[in-house]
Amino acid sequence: MTEKLKVGILGATGTVGQRFIQLLENHPQFEVTEVCASERSEGKNYAQAAAWKLATPLPERVGRLKVKPIEPTLDCDIVFSSLPSSIAASAEVAFAQAGYPVISNSSALRMEADVPLVIPEINADHLGLITRQRTVRNFDKGFVVTNPNCSVITFAAPLAALSEAFGVESVAVTTLQAVSGAGYPGVPSLDVADNVVPYIDGEEPKVETEPQKILGQLIGDSIEHASFSISAQCNRVPVLDGHLACLKVKLSVTPAIEDVRYALEDFDGPALTSSPPKLIVFRDEIDRPQPRLDRDASNGMAITVGRLQPDNVFDFRFVALSHNTIRGAAGAAILNAELLADRGWVGG
Amino acid sequence: MTEKLKVGILGATGTVGQRFIQLLENHPQFEVTEVCASERSEGKNYAQAAAWKLATPLPERVGRLKVKPIEPTLDCDIVFSSLPSSIAASAEVAFAQAGYPVISNSSALRMEADVPLVIPEINADHLGLITRQRTVRNFDKGFVVTNPNCSVITFAAPLAALSEAFGVESVAVTTLQAVSGAGYPGVPSLDVADNVVPYIDGEEPKVETEPQKILGQLIGDSIEHASFSISAQCNRVPVLDGHLACLKVKLSVTPAIEDVRYALEDFDGPALTSSPPKLIVFRDEIDRPQPRLDRDASNGMAITVGRLQPDNVFDFRFVALSHNTIRGAAGAAILNAELLADRGWVGG
Amino acid sequence: MTEKLKVGILGATGTVGQRFIQLLENHPQFEVTEVCASERSEGKNYAQAAAWKLATPLPERVGRLKVKPIEPTLDCDIVFSSLPSSIAASAEVAFAQAGYPVISNSSALRMEADVPLVIPEINADHLGLITRQRTVRNFDKGFVVTNPNCSVITFAAPLAALSEAFGVESVAVTTLQAVSGAGYPGVPSLDVADNVVPYIDGEEPKVETEPQKILGQLIGDSIEHASFSISAQCNRVPVLDGHLACLKVKLSVTPAIEDVRYALEDFDGPALTSSPPKLIVFRDEIDRPQPRLDRDASNGMAITVGRLQPDNVFDFRFVALSHNTIRGAAGAAILNAELLADRGWVGG
Amino acid sequence: MTEKLKVGILGATGTVGQRFIQLLENHPQFEVTEVCASERSEGKNYAQAAAWKLATPLPERVGRLKVKPIEPTLDCDIVFSSLPSSIAASAEVAFAQAGYPVISNSSALRMEADVPLVIPEINADHLGLITRQRTVRNFDKGFVVTNPNCSVITFAAPLAALSEAFGVESVAVTTLQAVSGAGYPGVPSLDVADNVVPYIDGEEPKVETEPQKILGQLIGDSIEHASFSISAQCNRVPVLDGHLACLKVKLSVTPAIEDVRYALEDFDGPALTSSPPKLIVFRDEIDRPQPRLDRDASNGMAITVGRLQPDNVFDFRFVALSHNTIRGAAGAAILNAELLADRGWVGG
Repeated sequence: MTEKLKVGILGATGTVGQRFIQLLENHPQFEVTEVCASERSEGKNYAQAAAWKLATPLPERVGRLKVKPIEPTLDCDIVFSSLPSSIAASAEVAFAQAGYPVISNSSALRMEADVPLVIPEINADHLGLITRQRTVRNFDKGFVVTNPNCSVITFAAPLAALSEAFGVESVAVTTLQAVSGAGYPGVPSLDVADNVVPYIDGEEPKVETEPQKILGQLIGDSIEHASFSISAQCNRVPVLDGHLACLKVKLSVTPAIEDVRYALEDFDGPALTSSPPKLIVFRDEIDRPQPRLDRDASNGMAITVGRLQPDNVFDFRFVALSHNTIRGAAGAAILNAELLADRGWVGG
Repeated sequence: MTEKLKVGILGATGTVGQRFIQLLENHPQFEVTEVCASERSEGKNYAQAAAWKLATPLPERVGRLKVKPIEPTLDCDIVFSSLPSSIAASAEVAFAQAGYPVISNSSALRMEADVPLVIPEINADHLGLITRQRTVRNFDKGFVVTNPNCSVITFAAPLAALSEAFGVESVAVTTLQAVSGAGYPGVPSLDVADNVVPYIDGEEPKVETEPQKILGQLIGDSIEHASFSISAQCNRVPVLDGHLACLKVKLSVTPAIEDVRYALEDFDGPALTSSPPKLIVFRDEIDRPQPRLDRDASNGMAITVGRLQPDNVFDFRFVALSHNTIRGAAGAAILNAELLADRGWVGG
Repeated sequence: MTEKLKVGILGATGTVGQRFIQLLENHPQFEVTEVCASERSEGKNYAQAAAWKLATPLPERVGRLKVKPIEPTLDCDIVFSSLPSSIAASAEVAFAQAGYPVISNSSALRMEADVPLVIPEINADHLGLITRQRTVRNFDKGFVVTNPNCSVITFAAPLAALSEAFGVESVAVTTLQAVSGAGYPGVPSLDVADNVVPYIDGEEPKVETEPQKILGQLIGDSIEHASFSISAQCNRVPVLDGHLACLKVKLSVTPAIEDVRYALEDFDGPALTSSPPKLIVFRDEIDRPQPRLDRDASNGMAITVGRLQPDNVFDFRFVALSHNTIRGAAGAAILNAELLADRGWVGG
Repeated sequence: MTEKLKVGILGATGTVGQRFIQLLENHPQFEVTEVCASERSEGKNYAQAAAWKLATPLPERVGRLKVKPIEPTLDCDIVFSSLPSSIAASAEVAFAQAGYPVISNSSALRMEADVPLVIPEINADHLGLITRQRTVRNFDKGFVVTNPNCSVITFAAPLAALSEAFGVESVAVTTLQAVSGAGYPGVPSLDVADNVVPYIDGEEPKVETEPQKILGQLIGDSIEHASFSISAQCNRVPVLDGHLACLKVKLSVTPAIEDVRYALEDFDGPALTSSPPKLIVFRDEIDRPQPRLDRDASNGMAITVGRLQPDNVFDFRFVALSHNTIRGAAGAAILNAELLADRGWVGG
């Protein structure tokens, strides 16, 4: 029996950090051995330091771990990072420098030319950038691999499916994003109860640029970004979990609607431990996807798509949804780690 | 001192019916004298028949009115209708036939070629259709005038402003609509709490077609609809009142952004009793408009616009908001009645 | 390997009916073979008839079952009923008369002198009433066994624990109840969003009388009700699932607070298939129990208690919570069925 | 025409500070001339410093005021304080020492033996303590007068009415409190959306002790606290504004229920500028009071009572509601200031 890889979590007490711990409990390949957080939490054990907000109980073993400072002296084989952007870049580089594979959910390094921005079902081959990254940055064994913004993950897979099958010319997206996306304490009740806030700091630029990198081509040791343009409007809505995206797309060719549906349902990727049975779950009901009913599809790892219609201004429109702290954050990073293990970049 | 015009309300016990009563209390030109509702309510007085859901008290005098059947034998000068579509068409025509001016919030007749679909600030001249309507339908003194769908009202004025100044080529709109738009009992808590429903029955087609009529030209006795196309995606969100619309527009010419803003703020209409001081309130804060903070602007009669930005796929994008049961329904009809009085179509 | 008992569900399309189906999927002892609902649903298969509102998918096999009328001609060994009170009494008696064991969540027959009102951990011996019921009502093989109101279940177990250990003199309870307790469509958003409704039809009388029967003594073939009095105030709050009860109790003796806690934690019952590992989960955190975090404890079958304090007017106060459609309804009935199977009243 | 008294506000940028500004706009006796807040806001004007969260616009004149530090060098006649408890005691004493009448909403000094804790309709005579306060503390012209905790205000008036008419022996109260009571940012969405939190820091002790002071007798220069005991359980619910209290009371005599109602409705106080037409609004509907529908009764200054019933354990039970940041905070303080002006303690 293979031993599990030891995992350290940077930013372990936050909303995404807690999801890492929840999702890694009983994971066959990984085991959390180190939890790191800001100075405020140091010296406490995890149970004391974290305001555990998930409905499943905090695993007792993790609760007893001592919270450590964010310094690259951890006893672990890989590191998951959900650090705030302000400190992520330097911390993640420091860990990679010290030899740790860093699988990051932070936005800090995502758009760096030598950092893979990966969704396993779409662009697993972008891991090839790691070689360049090690050369450029003088990393020996360590590296940084990132996953996209939580809203981008909601619609990148449908876009990839359409891009592969028909070519994508332009995209208009309006997001309705859950409050857990802002972490804890995050969004005050007084801001979002009986309300919508049509602004999320830094979100629209990410949504308008990350997909083109993910759907880009690795040519030599560079990513040539996809050329379609995206228009994004991002809203915070009073929903706990689950980002919903209303999408309109202009394609290079104009397929029949049943072919669009087929392309969406047919799109898939490598079968990793946390992979959903089907990446895109297509719902025929006229009122789906809905955050409360669909966010937990396939343990929160599937993307649910529905309301596919021809469009007056674009070619087609549809609605996509995914769980923002699972498929959109902690689960995305874990899937990347599973991909890295599968491809021999970590473990062994 | 002029006597007030006597008003009858069809569908008086519903969500919009209650708003009519609230807004007409102490109105200088109109006075509610008749309230009509379905058979279930007949024989009761209004206070017994209506489950009053507004935070201001039910006016006592109205509470004592006896609820009458929906038959054109009322003692009143004009009729406001917020009947469900299924019965609105025949009932409204019957009242007009019997000589009543009918100012309707229902969708049933809005798109009929001889029925004005009016927002006073945009197309007051469309009232000219009344003459044709009377001829075609053999109405003597009566007629039907309608106001648009509650979501359309949110963005028709900004579109009109942009159309007048720069020409509009195409529009993409995603709405986030409040539960009061579905009336009472309307949306079950189990459907929308901690959730979004990306479907509202019949809404997207209305949003994609009504604006072209409103922004159309009255030529002879016909409306030539505006030619831009609209792509709409409509969502129900857990907000009590206030429809928000995320808009992207392609214009015929490409103005500077400050000219767009100026065109929005500058757009205005006739000064009627319920007119807001300024039709479009432009907010510079990065996170406005918001339903809870902006829906009651100018007693719910203003439209709030913000987040104006250049757009990657269209020319500009922005967010608009209005109170769906005031500016978007009862208030819209009352403003139409004031316009009709001002132009001599009712009263005198 | 034993064959599973075949189960029919009366009221299968409702909120509690859906929970029955969800909880019985993969149950080792029971298998749903018949689904019954009102005439509106007849002729459809279950997937068409039910507006499935749970986040786990509708089991495909059940979705294909044809919905039948509520008539005692089903092919099943036992019947679960979540019929509305108005029709439950006659329908349940008819099924029992026809030989079916009826395990009911309806309130209709709960307080009948010959009908057991059972929570397995508290008063399993009340099943002895079945013999009297069969005699009195001329039932041959059939019978009716009921479980309590969903709010009563939240605090009956803590009361039973305290009653057994110290005697209970009087109880004051204020409930904060979730919207799923009213079924679907149930509570309109316009009633409960940003609001509390301090009234639930018929609830306070149930909460003030059922516990005394449950905690009563079976003497001969009668239940002698417990003698303490209860004062109840019941509120609907904007929460999806999970009823919370704020309790104050006066005891016959005045124990130390640690003994109260011990009595609560120590209270337990028979180990049935759906039994939680521990009936009462005591939480030490100062802000627990909370509906969203604790309703799913032990798959929704545990009762969570916290905030135990000495009280100025009574002896002690505390807060209790349980999942109203699992432990408080469908799960309660299933546990009763498991108890009946364990004691040989059904199966075999 | 009398000149208005100049008002300084301590803690002006907070939730209650904003209500002060909203309620004092156009007040006939008072005018805001100074706004003070923590160092973070200093140097900015009020519009820049405050995240204005009310649906009515920030008065322009106040928006232009420069935010000052909390030091007793203001140009004003009276001071309203909504400072956090941690700094309120010393700051309020410093202002009183410097000659300012301080009307405080903070809890810091409420229970001091020489500080009046006043609701004008109940215990206006407690202002007599000011003389003692000045002597004891060596104040010359200044003094501190406080109003109660926001939940206490909800039920103190009903208790006073019952106490006066029948005597009160004991009280059990369970509160359902709005999120605005915690200020801004206050309660995170992740804590209270789809949830209830059965704990509010420091609340239960206040609710259990302040009413006895308010309903106490001023004898000589001391308050003899009322002798009844109170049991309180306090919950945070997902409601924006409006605290609801479920109450059960044991009286010294047992009146007929209609006499209880009469005593509640009949209770009243001095007619001050902000006094509601009737202090206690009694609602007969079976499902009132409700926060969303009743919090704004009489501009948020009335207390709404309903659901009066005989009780099994106490004598009667009922539900009371008031607007927590108006009648329960800023409005309470303004009413106290009006009382002080009426009695000649300020102005003149």
